[in-house]
This record gives sequence, C-alpha cells and structure tokens, in this order.
Amino acid sequence: MIPLAFPYPLHRRLLRPRLRQIRLVVCDVDGVLTDGGLSYDEEGKVVKRFDVRDGLAVRMLQQAGITVALLSGGRGGASEQRALHLDIHHCRMGVRNKRAGLEQLRHELAIGREQTAFLGDDLNDLPVRAAAGLLITPADAAPGLRRQADWILRRRGGDGALREFSDALLASRGWMEGFETAGVGTTN
Amino acid sequence: MIPLAFPYPLHRRLLRPRLRQIRLVVCDVDGVLTDGGLSYDEEGKVVKRFDVRDGLAVRMLQQAGITVALLSGGRGGASEQRALHLDIHHCRMGVRNKRAGLEQLRHELAIGREQTAFLGDDLNDLPVRAAAGLLITPADAAPGLRRQADWILRRRGGDGALREFSDALLASRGWMEGFETAGVGTTN
Amino acid sequence: MIPLAFPYPLHRRLLRPRLRQIRLVVCDVDGVLTDGGLSYDEEGKVVKRFDVRDGLAVRMLQQAGITVALLSGGRGGASEQRALHLDIHHCRMGVRNKRAGLEQLRHELAIGREQTAFLGDDLNDLPVRAAAGLLITPADAAPGLRRQADWILRRRGGDGALREFSDALLASRGWMEGFETAGVGTTN
Amino acid sequence: MIPLAFPYPLHRRLLRPRLRQIRLVVCDVDGVLTDGGLSYDEEGKVVKRFDVRDGLAVRMLQQAGITVALLSGGRGGASEQRALHLDIHHCRMGVRNKRAGLEQLRHELAIGREQTAFLGDDLNDLPVRAAAGLLITPADAAPGLRRQADWILRRRGGDGALREFSDALLASRGWMEGFETAGVGTTN
Repeated sequence: MIPLAFPYPLHRRLLRPRLRQIRLVVCDVDGVLTDGGLSYDEEGKVVKRFDVRDGLAVRMLQQAGITVALLSGGRGGASEQRALHLDIHHCRMGVRNKRAGLEQLRHELAIGREQTAFLGDDLNDLPVRAAAGLLITPADAAPGLRRQADWILRRRGGDGALREFSDALLASRGWMEGFETAGVGTTN
Repeated sequence: MIPLAFPYPLHRRLLRPRLRQIRLVVCDVDGVLTDGGLSYDEEGKVVKRFDVRDGLAVRMLQQAGITVALLSGGRGGASEQRALHLDIHHCRMGVRNKRAGLEQLRHELAIGREQTAFLGDDLNDLPVRAAAGLLITPADAAPGLRRQADWILRRRGGDGALREFSDALLASRGWMEGFETAGVGTTN
Repeated sequence: MIPLAFPYPLHRRLLRPRLRQIRLVVCDVDGVLTDGGLSYDEEGKVVKRFDVRDGLAVRMLQQAGITVALLSGGRGGASEQRALHLDIHHCRMGVRNKRAGLEQLRHELAIGREQTAFLGDDLNDLPVRAAAGLLITPADAAPGLRRQADWILRRRGGDGALREFSDALLASRGWMEGFETAGVGTTN
Repeated sequence: MIPLAFPYPLHRRLLRPRLRQIRLVVCDVDGVLTDGGLSYDEEGKVVKRFDVRDGLAVRMLQQAGITVALLSGGRGGASEQRALHLDIHHCRMGVRNKRAGLEQLRHELAIGREQTAFLGDDLNDLPVRAAAGLLITPADAAPGLRRQADWILRRRGGDGALREFSDALLASRGWMEGFETAGVGTTN
C-alpha cells in the first residue's frame, strides 16, 4: 500500500522522517472515522457507522506502542462506545476549542508537537494546525482544510482513511512486514 | 470550492447578485439533507441519516445572520430531532401545501420572495417555485424539478448539497475567507 | 427521463403498448425497494432502508388508479411497516411459492396476466415469470433473472428503480405531464 | 456470471477442479458478509448490514449439500442473529486464533484442508492460510491478504462477494443451471 499511498516519490521521501517521529495519533470522529453520517432516530438518539479496518488500525498502532486518542466537537455517545471497545483511553468529546484540547492532551502525555499527528476533515479542525506536527485529511475533507494539510489521504472518511495512514506510519518504522507475515490478533 | 461550484462563468456572474440578497434558506429534508433513505425498523419507526458537513453549513449560515428553516411533506420524528440539535427553530413537517407553507413562513419572518432560497429534490417541491427567489436542487433531484431549478448543485442529497450551496452563499458575501482562516466553532 | 429510460427506440416503441395495459404493479421488497441490505441488531431485529423517491412513485401510481402490491419471500416487519405508511393494502410476506402468490392476488383483484407487472431482483423471482405480463428488474439484479426480463432498469434496487419504472408507466398514459407541471401531493 | 468471474481462462481452468472438491465454506463476517461497517448506538450496541443476495447464496449452498460456517474475531450479537436466520449452525465468534478455530471445526466435521474454502478480508485472517485449501478475498480486502489469496473476487464485502463465489462453486458442479431454470426457494 505504501508505494501507492504517497503519490510523488519526493513527497514520500520528505514525509517518512516526520512519520517516524510520531508517538501520538489523534483523530476527529465524524468525517474521519465515519463518513460523516449522523443517523437520527425519532427520539433524537444518534447512530454512527465505524469501519472494521480502522479498528484493526487502532489495534496495530497500539501494539506498536503508539497512543491513539479521539478529539471531537460532536457529542459523545456512539463515539465513546467505539473508543471503549477499542481500548482508546483518551476520548474527548464536545470540545469547543480543539487547539486547547490537543495541547492539554499532549501536555498530559508529555508528547511534543512534532510527535503528534492529527486527522481531521472540516473547518472546525483548522485551529489544530498549530498544535500538531502533521495534519492529515481524508480525501473528502473540506477544501479549506485540505489546503492546510501535510497529507491528503486517498481514502475517504469511514472508508479506511485511518488505516491508510497507520499502514504508512507502521511501515515507516518497519512494523508492517511483521503484520503482513504473521498476521494480527483479534479485531473489532 | 466556488470556482468549481458554478460550471460557467456567465452563470456564476448572474447568480452572485441574487445570492447576496438571500436572508432565508429553506430546505426540504428527505433527498436534500438526506440521500432519501428511510430506514424502517420492525415497529415502523424511521431513522434518517444526516451529514455532519451540512450541520456545519447550518452553523456557519446562522453565524452569518441567515435564517435556516425546514419544510417537508414527510413525517417529523428524526427530522425534528436533527433540527433541535442544530437550533433550527422553524421546522414545519407534514406540510401538504408547500407553497402556502413557505409563504406563511416568509410572512412570519417578514422576508420577501427574492430574499428566500429553497432547496428541494422532487416533484412535490414544484409548487414552491412561485414562492422562492431561488430554487436549488441536489445533483440527483427528479428531472422534472431540475428543469425548473436556478441552480443544480454538484453534490447529491445527504452528501453535502446544503454545504455546497452555503459555501457559495457565504462566499458571495465575503464570509468564507474568515471561516477558512480562523476556523469555525463546534459542529454537530 | 423517458427518452433515457428505453435505450433503444425500437424497444421503447414495442414496450409502450404493453405498459399502457398495466393495472397492477407487484414489487419484491429486498433488492428492489431496498438495496438488499438487512441491518441486524444484537437481538435479531432487522432494519431495511427504503427510498423516498419510490414512495412518491407509489403515491403517483395510486393517484393514477394503478394498484401497487408487495410480494416477498422475506419476513415482514419493516416491509409491512413501509407498506402501511404508503397505504399499500396488498402486502404478502414470507411467500414460498411466489407464482401461486401472484396468481392468487391477480384472482382476488380480477386482473389479467397482461395487466400485471412484476419487479424482482433474484433467482427466487424466476417462477413469477409465467404469471406476470411484464418482468422488470433493477440494474443490479442477478444475471439469471436479468436474462428473463422484459426490461432491465438503469437504476439499482433501493435507488429509485420503482420510480424509473413508474415514470415510464405513467408517461405511457400521459400522466407525467400533469405531475411535472402541477407537482404532486404529500410523500413519504 | 462465471465467464466474468474468472478474468483469465487459464486461471479458471486451474481453479475449477479445486472448486469441485469444496465441501465446507467458512466466512469471516466483518468486511466479507458486510462492508466492514459497525454502526454503534449511544449504548454501544452494534448493528451490521448483511446482503440479501448472500443470504440466497447460503441457501443454495445448503441445498447443494455444502456446509456453511462463520468464523470471526469480532463479537457475536448481530452476526449470530444473521446465522440463526440462515440456519448456519457453525458460528464461532470472538475467535482469537482463527487457524486453530478452523482446524477444530474441520476436525469436528471430518473435512480435509483441500475440501475447505475460507473467505476473509484482513490481516487477522492471514493465519488461516495454512488451514484452508482455498483462500478467497473480496475485491476490497487488505493488500497484505490479497497477495496470499487464491482468488480475489470482483465484488466487495457486503455487496455479494459470497454470492459471486458460491455461483462459481455451484457452477463447477453443474448446480447453477437448475437454479437458473427452476428458480430457488425462499430467501432471507
């Protein structure tokens, strides 16, 4: 997947050393781990659709010692339940000031800006730009955010975007070979 | 997004002055804010899937002082819940006569026809034509309605159609630059 | 839509007189009125996603005096609820022998074979062939059924397939012009 | 469908004798029988979307005397309910060691490796390679698994992948002709 993931060899060569530094991956939820769909029932409860391949991505990142966190302006509920199932312990929902939220999270974990990657999809993720070493977006992110991104993924939100990123991140450290030979443990 | 949104420069030049007048954006729900899907459970309760990007569109329109309203022939339930979460105070469901419904809404808000845009997708939205300054349709609207539209969007219902329209509307007034530099507050 | 609906003028000319005779439209549910998705919850309850445009199709057919019925091998539940909302009074679920089911329905309604159109999508609809004047399939029906069809629609199941058929049927009798000028009443 | 299913006549000729030996078809669930979507509600309950065409595939395989089983690392719930409705008696969920799980199942059923086909979609299915005669993947499986596959299907998970495989399997034994002439019994 790596050769395809970076459209230009130059870009790829420049990005790889920065990928190797990443110790914390922070994801927005709606539009990144989902396709942006909010399914409302008649009582106002919301269902969100996550992707099993992204679940395996979280598991592989965790096995490689990389911390995964969620940071969203949306309400909790379904997102918190997904986090629970994937043992994602840092799950901040309803965050109005995402930049402050990310800086606080980095402070708690003692992780620097250059060691932090953020995956977002819309203009409310723009303020995070200053607090993350890498800003990554799915293919279908808002144009205004894509223009600020270090890397625009080929996959759309909820359709393996996190997995595309994690495959490249793990490959940059030589981890993918093991997963692709021996396989991976249980997924959700 | 604007340069792509208007396929022909002429069309774009003609539409922009009309966009600048809009103070009220009225949306049909099924097929506009959703892809037309009605998910029935075994008891007849219906779930509808909305798009988080359209949610941010509503928030940006509201911040710019433009009123957003819903006007639908379908039943309430999920649609009313979505309206509630987005602080859309004018939400008329089960409307049989959409033209009368829109005229009454405009009367209550003291907003003229030329200041009103309506987004609809099917033949039951046709009568609204006479009561709205602009009739806008998603890309996948019924051919019979598309033929009457002032603007056929590139995006489909439930896949950011409202957002495409609101980006253009806000850009016509010079608001998008701010949102794309400073970012936007919390979304749903 | 009509000029596109029939790929070949010859086919179109041949089909039109047969369309004009239709007084009863019988639909399979899964894969025709839905995309074939069966969404199971943890207790085994099933949700099905219908299309609001097909709902308007049913309403227009009813207004034109054409009877709409459902005939499915699947379980009821969601399908019966959808029928209820659309005032479809003939809704037969869990039918093992679809041919016998269709013949009985035609007998009850005193409607001949040539006046009956059936929309199906898979090999379990094959036996119906002998009992229906027209066999219609969505674009994504099973190849083995498509080979027996009088008309393969351009639209997929759950994505307006019934509507494509009903638009052509109503046009063959001159009804579409009215709907496309004056609009249509409330939808579901 | 068969002529299309095998892109190269040579491949087709080589695969057919191996297909004829298959007596047991074992499927992973998420990403094979579904598109990988996990829809979470606010209480953490998960809904999965299955395909009615795959349901008919299971019915046809059972009528042909071939055993169908499910083997998944994911949680049960929706998957077990789907199995129940389709009379799939061998349904193993939450399996950490899929290879051991498959070998145990084969042992219980007294079915050899060459008589067993496994359909999987991700790296956690890799260990199964050694225990199955045929490893089949949907079109959108993880690249690392596709590289080990005997056959990469044209269809995606949850969109008729199992059906594409079962059509070919049944055709290799001459069963499809009957189904495509006389039709098939009730489906789910």
